[in-house]
Amino acid sequence: MKATDRRRQIAVIGSSEPDPELMKLAVEIGGYIAEIGAVLICGGLGGIMEAAASGAKEQGGLTIGILPDYNKETANPFIDVAISTGLGHARNVIVAASGDIVIALPGSHGTRSEISIALKLHKPVIGVKAWADIQGVRQIDNLEELRKVMVPYL
Amino acid sequence: MKATDRRRQIAVIGSSEPDPELMKLAVEIGGYIAEIGAVLICGGLGGIMEAAASGAKEQGGLTIGILPDYNKETANPFIDVAISTGLGHARNVIVAASGDIVIALPGSHGTRSEISIALKLHKPVIGVKAWADIQGVRQIDNLEELRKVMVPYL
Amino acid sequence: MKATDRRRQIAVIGSSEPDPELMKLAVEIGGYIAEIGAVLICGGLGGIMEAAASGAKEQGGLTIGILPDYNKETANPFIDVAISTGLGHARNVIVAASGDIVIALPGSHGTRSEISIALKLHKPVIGVKAWADIQGVRQIDNLEELRKVMVPYL
Amino acid sequence: MKATDRRRQIAVIGSSEPDPELMKLAVEIGGYIAEIGAVLICGGLGGIMEAAASGAKEQGGLTIGILPDYNKETANPFIDVAISTGLGHARNVIVAASGDIVIALPGSHGTRSEISIALKLHKPVIGVKAWADIQGVRQIDNLEELRKVMVPYL
Repeated sequence: MKATDRRRQIAVIGSSEPDPELMKLAVEIGGYIAEIGAVLICGGLGGIMEAAASGAKEQGGLTIGILPDYNKETANPFIDVAISTGLGHARNVIVAASGDIVIALPGSHGTRSEISIALKLHKPVIGVKAWADIQGVRQIDNLEELRKVMVPYL
Repeated sequence: MKATDRRRQIAVIGSSEPDPELMKLAVEIGGYIAEIGAVLICGGLGGIMEAAASGAKEQGGLTIGILPDYNKETANPFIDVAISTGLGHARNVIVAASGDIVIALPGSHGTRSEISIALKLHKPVIGVKAWADIQGVRQIDNLEELRKVMVPYL
Repeated sequence: MKATDRRRQIAVIGSSEPDPELMKLAVEIGGYIAEIGAVLICGGLGGIMEAAASGAKEQGGLTIGILPDYNKETANPFIDVAISTGLGHARNVIVAASGDIVIALPGSHGTRSEISIALKLHKPVIGVKAWADIQGVRQIDNLEELRKVMVPYL
Repeated sequence: MKATDRRRQIAVIGSSEPDPELMKLAVEIGGYIAEIGAVLICGGLGGIMEAAASGAKEQGGLTIGILPDYNKETANPFIDVAISTGLGHARNVIVAASGDIVIALPGSHGTRSEISIALKLHKPVIGVKAWADIQGVRQIDNLEELRKVMVPYL
């Protein structure tokens, strides 16, 4: 039997209540992830997670939402596969661990915890819009810059 | 933007070292899951998990492996999306919770823990080959019987 | 600096809504755990967990409650140290894993998941009152029998 | 039956490989926690975790170690109760969640993830030695300053 060709997995993290400009950028980033044939991993809820998933779906991508509770109805409408963890904030670890690369849009404590775990696991972390000036996070401001920093990983 | 049409998710659980006859049945069950357009959720490792995933891939299905550790290379070759949890045995809870329905082939303590959690979460649990005679588990012996008990859930 | 003398840890699991006779036995078992100088580990909530903790406290023991949510106010009044996990049912894995020995009074799916994980981790599991006739569980009916089966572990 | 008087729980987090000066301060902080009658919660391993636990034990305190794996032998020698989680980095969430107050000595990504989760859960977080200049973290430099910032919580 032929093995499946496992696609790259990219986690997108960020605020559940971002400003509109960031939502637009998250949609573009989600679209880009679909375009390069990668699977979008996210926390499955609203804000950046929903914007990125909608962008990915618009380009025919595959979207995975790693939910903090047991109820799949909490997933945003652009999630193809809902992973119900029931783990609360500990689901953040799974989001970070399941991405081969983590793209961090501005967020708050939850997003910071995901960045920390991703760095701990030696994942490439790309920070968007001068957020998270933690050592080891590569900074970008827009989709063009994302395309450039992604080159070594494609 | 148009919402995605989230597909049914079916978890297949069972031994990582089953006998050959069960492997054959697991392949058939995986194929059936793909055939009805559902997503296969499993623990991502060998034995029943691998057999079911290979059957699903053979029929063009989508397979999700919820791994106990952080290393995606532990996933069997038929897993499309590897969810790296690093949670050890606690990843069993996620396998059970992420299936809308749980199909339990013979296994041991790990499989039993998944059945227990699935029942706790009020999931339909289908037991294969007179295994797991726990109250609330519907018993079947072959693919034909599986097709029949699945009718109300399609 | 002198190392601490880490005491044996015994997990007591069982229904959150047991019948009165079992509550009485759980109090006795909790008292016995304190008496032999062991630490009581439990899920921290009501029923068997509360009865065992109250029995342990009556004898001056130490009680640890591993809670499914983040709110310590959910702990029963006989818990000395509340471990807030926020992990939902996955906290069951921690209860089983933190006991050097697991004593299982009658319960339902949650308790069964704990027994399964304890057996998976090769812990001695003692089943009370002909419950959980799973291979590998040693059966007892009362405190006297518990005292006897505990001898090799003291 | 009389309820137990649940003591305050203080989590101490920080590097597993700190410099000697910080070890000394961690011992003092652990001693202080015991002195005020609080329970020390930590990750149970070496470095800051071990120093704080040794300080607490020296003053007759109670120490809880929340371990990332299933093996209690990984606990440092000053841990009274070892909670074996098997959860890998997700155990950080439990350390943060189980403290009523979190004291963060300098550390790296793991420690940062714990600070983030503590802030997310609205816990008071006290940062030691100008580390973690995250909004919401109260900064101190030594034990005297710790005593002062702790006053409102006693």
